[in-house]
Amino acid sequence: MKKFKKIKNGTVTSPEGFFADGIFAGLKSAGEDKLDLGILLSEEPCEWAATYTDNKIKSSSIDYCKEIEGKIKGIIVNSGSANCCVGYQGLIDSRDIATKCKEIFNSKEPFLMSSTGVIGVEIPVGLIMNSIEKFNLDSNGGEKFSRAIITTDSKTKNVSVNVNSKNGSYKIGGVAKGSGMIHPKMGTMLSYITTDAGLNSEDLTSLLRESVENSFNQIDVDGDTSTNDTVVVMANGKSGINLNTPDEINEFKEALDYVTKFLAKQIAEDGEGISHLITVEVNGAKNDKDALSVSNAVVSSSLVKTAIFGKDPNWGRIMMAIGNADAEIIRDKIKIFVNGIQISEEGKSISFHYQSVLSALDNFQIDIEIDLGIASGRGIAWGSDLTEEYVVFNSAYTT
Amino acid sequence: MKKFKKIKNGTVTSPEGFFADGIFAGLKSAGEDKLDLGILLSEEPCEWAATYTDNKIKSSSIDYCKEIEGKIKGIIVNSGSANCCVGYQGLIDSRDIATKCKEIFNSKEPFLMSSTGVIGVEIPVGLIMNSIEKFNLDSNGGEKFSRAIITTDSKTKNVSVNVNSKNGSYKIGGVAKGSGMIHPKMGTMLSYITTDAGLNSEDLTSLLRESVENSFNQIDVDGDTSTNDTVVVMANGKSGINLNTPDEINEFKEALDYVTKFLAKQIAEDGEGISHLITVEVNGAKNDKDALSVSNAVVSSSLVKTAIFGKDPNWGRIMMAIGNADAEIIRDKIKIFVNGIQISEEGKSISFHYQSVLSALDNFQIDIEIDLGIASGRGIAWGSDLTEEYVVFNSAYTT
Repeated sequence: MKKFKKIKNGTVTSPEGFFADGIFAGLKSAGEDKLDLGILLSEEPCEWAATYTDNKIKSSSIDYCKEIEGKIKGIIVNSGSANCCVGYQGLIDSRDIATKCKEIFNSKEPFLMSSTGVIGVEIPVGLIMNSIEKFNLDSNGGEKFSRAIITTDSKTKNVSVNVNSKNGSYKIGGVAKGSGMIHPKMGTMLSYITTDAGLNSEDLTSLLRESVENSFNQIDVDGDTSTNDTVVVMANGKSGINLNTPDEINEFKEALDYVTKFLAKQIAEDGEGISHLITVEVNGAKNDKDALSVSNAVVSSSLVKTAIFGKDPNWGRIMMAIGNADAEIIRDKIKIFVNGIQISEEGKSISFHYQSVLSALDNFQIDIEIDLGIASGRGIAWGSDLTEEYVVFNSAYTT
Repeated sequence: MKKFKKIKNGTVTSPEGFFADGIFAGLKSAGEDKLDLGILLSEEPCEWAATYTDNKIKSSSIDYCKEIEGKIKGIIVNSGSANCCVGYQGLIDSRDIATKCKEIFNSKEPFLMSSTGVIGVEIPVGLIMNSIEKFNLDSNGGEKFSRAIITTDSKTKNVSVNVNSKNGSYKIGGVAKGSGMIHPKMGTMLSYITTDAGLNSEDLTSLLRESVENSFNQIDVDGDTSTNDTVVVMANGKSGINLNTPDEINEFKEALDYVTKFLAKQIAEDGEGISHLITVEVNGAKNDKDALSVSNAVVSSSLVKTAIFGKDPNWGRIMMAIGNADAEIIRDKIKIFVNGIQISEEGKSISFHYQSVLSALDNFQIDIEIDLGIASGRGIAWGSDLTEEYVVFNSAYTT
């Protein structure tokens, strides 16, 4: 039985002792209700862990985060500029902005910083520095924070769960932004996870790494891995529940995995120009790693994406994509199902009711199930289809 | 000084002793002048070498080719069906068809077979078997052969060169088909290269492998590696010029590299829905391998492709793509030029004449030059941009 329950309208400030806000500092072109600077902090210092993009060209904001050791107070995030490819100045800017946060919020512990937006444009340091004192910290500020960190996202992505452990209850909250340049490796887009449970940074590090592998690293919009992907988890222990035993840690892990998968799926669902959410579930792989690799390869294939957009039950393209995965594949053992209808057996076509598959492809959600027939490895990946709208959108927008 | 010269309207039958033909066997939907079955053979038995797709799911025609040892007579190619994901029957079909070729053309040596077209559909063996006797071998049949092997290509791709070595002259001819599902690894789409020079199969194997790495493996249309990619080189020695010394081999290598790069570029230029041919030249890499990897990553990025389609001089996306390459990268040393105009220095933006870059992006040919500033490794890649037309085309076509 699940020990956790989703909280209605939950956010990163649902866990005790977390405060946040989002304001308009002037980084984005002004628009009604646009926010571009967010802050998230805890009244108690936090143990934390982070994963960052595998891209060899990283935002200076990530360079700055990597300098931070020990507990943290919180994180400041700007949207509108990636603070990337701006030379050494980017690191100086991050340090200055984070130091200013420490001063304004009277903290002994440092702040992290994240950025998202156009690459190669210097961030307007003055605008940001002068805006920090304008934050109104609020224990319900998670929603505003989620609005401040998005760029081309069509909606915010928030979630929170309540975990009923035998020693009492604690919460986990999460927020994310996605949209384009989405094919995370190790790190991901931006996502922040908060909890009022007490955990040490070693446990947080290993839990986060594994959770990200099965969630954010399994989504694809366009195959491009951003320079700024960052996932941070912060634990302030404010609930008084400390997690030490393997059972306690495992209970937390299940709830954390729910939060990261929920957010990952939300990102995939909100991919630029999307007309179908594609879920690829792989069973029967040699091991879970192979299953993750195959599901990732299928969800990332341009030709599978365009076939789904075109509502074409083209299982040959799915086979092609399976074969491009870094995994053990036995062609003549593969079964494929689309929205529950089997269309391939032993790596070959079988007779299926064409009209049923066609009408299944009218759904927004397309579930591709693949059985590799080798052993019992399992994995899931989520992605958007490739649409004319994606091309139009990305040929006009300067990322 | 180059020792070779391009032959006007040259094809695979330009070298001595090669004959070819292309006919309509009924695999493609009938249309005026559509050909779907081609044959290419040599009056003398050929030494040969081949590279095939890295996709773990391969066409049965490739499974068949891998059984062949010793000299060959020629190759039969069908378009319209990939002979892939059809179970064991596919291998039986290939063997039967190739055996029929051997009988009809009264040959002691076997034929290879290639297929291209829709995956997962059985090839019409009867139609093909009954068509083989209809071939009219012609020493000018290369052009017809090139028409028989294409699918969605908008034009045929042929080339031939004459090499003036000190012992006399010999020729190399080449043909290719491309269009979609183009991101070759090791092998590539379909390409056949003929020569009337005499070389042994060991030399042909190593020459072909290296040449393919620098040509076909460096092009990208949509990031998808096909199940059927095949490159074959055949040498019949008919010119009487045998190549044995390192100098002789090297002279051949230069001409072969010209032929493979010429065909690779033709494939990139003819990518589905293309509006720009993107050439990415990388200098200053740690080594040539790194340079090939960086140029490949840039030319394969969906976000770079859409930016070029949208005529947006978005160097931040180029930086993002560089960072995703498997290569040593020092962010703050990178220089980027677009059609000769420098737009980035030390990994940062520099002031450039925006209108000049914009008008450069009106050209069909977009040359992106990247200097990594590390050492002297060099590499080039070619690709198409990503257009609305690509999406429309691939959402309607069953590959």
